[in-house]
Amino acid sequence: MTDLICEQPVFILLIEDSDADAELAIRALRRSRISNQIQLLRDGAEALDFLFCRGIYSDRQIIDQPKIILLDLKLPKVSGLEVLQQIKADPRTQMIPIVMLTSSAQDSDILKSYQLGVNSYIVKPIDFEQFNQAVEQLGLYWVLINKTPVVQA
Amino acid sequence: MTDLICEQPVFILLIEDSDADAELAIRALRRSRISNQIQLLRDGAEALDFLFCRGIYSDRQIIDQPKIILLDLKLPKVSGLEVLQQIKADPRTQMIPIVMLTSSAQDSDILKSYQLGVNSYIVKPIDFEQFNQAVEQLGLYWVLINKTPVVQA
Repeated sequence: MTDLICEQPVFILLIEDSDADAELAIRALRRSRISNQIQLLRDGAEALDFLFCRGIYSDRQIIDQPKIILLDLKLPKVSGLEVLQQIKADPRTQMIPIVMLTSSAQDSDILKSYQLGVNSYIVKPIDFEQFNQAVEQLGLYWVLINKTPVVQA
Repeated sequence: MTDLICEQPVFILLIEDSDADAELAIRALRRSRISNQIQLLRDGAEALDFLFCRGIYSDRQIIDQPKIILLDLKLPKVSGLEVLQQIKADPRTQMIPIVMLTSSAQDSDILKSYQLGVNSYIVKPIDFEQFNQAVEQLGLYWVLINKTPVVQA
């Protein structure tokens, strides 16, 4: 189905190195029936290349950005906090909502994330059903209820 | 009922000058059964006094802060954007999640809010049922799913 209103397709970016966690999150997002495309990236360096259209992603356009980024804290190559910092420090990407989706409930991680400008922080529930519900809720909230600026080319 | 786990009671701060909109929002928050106390303030100057424990609120303690702030854009005395800027510029308050809840869908307002560090931006749906659903969803999301740092005295 062609969407005649939106210029860019809506997609969710999931940055997660654990196959098991990524599969669970993608399944829960699909169950929420927001029907969005989900882009999965497995390390912080690739995520930055993707968002800033560098390296193997140099043919992407910087205005073609996700509706929401779900970001793990502990990532290979470049950490989640470093990815967060770089996205929020750049005027071209700082308006993309970022939700930390992590197993860390450490107060220092939560504090540092908010200081770096994270929009929301979710500790992955250990219980399977609670995890599903949390991811479904966050998908609905950030895709259907939250509003982001229309990106200018 | 005394809560033996939380040191501070959880409450939501609603900063809204319209009686009709405030009543609607409070009713929707109560319907979401998150059972929180809701503090309503009607202008930006009073909101800043409340959050920074000044003036008539000088006997409040700065660590006793809301779980979430729902902030209107167009407020008497001090604008919503100015309130947002002051909260996000102060290390004592910058970790409190702020959701703009406004009738303005103007891109300049959305853009400016994100630049000032708003956590989320919601355009009040004109439809009564959609408004209720949006406020219920945001209450559930920010009170039950989102995690904020434990405040240190």
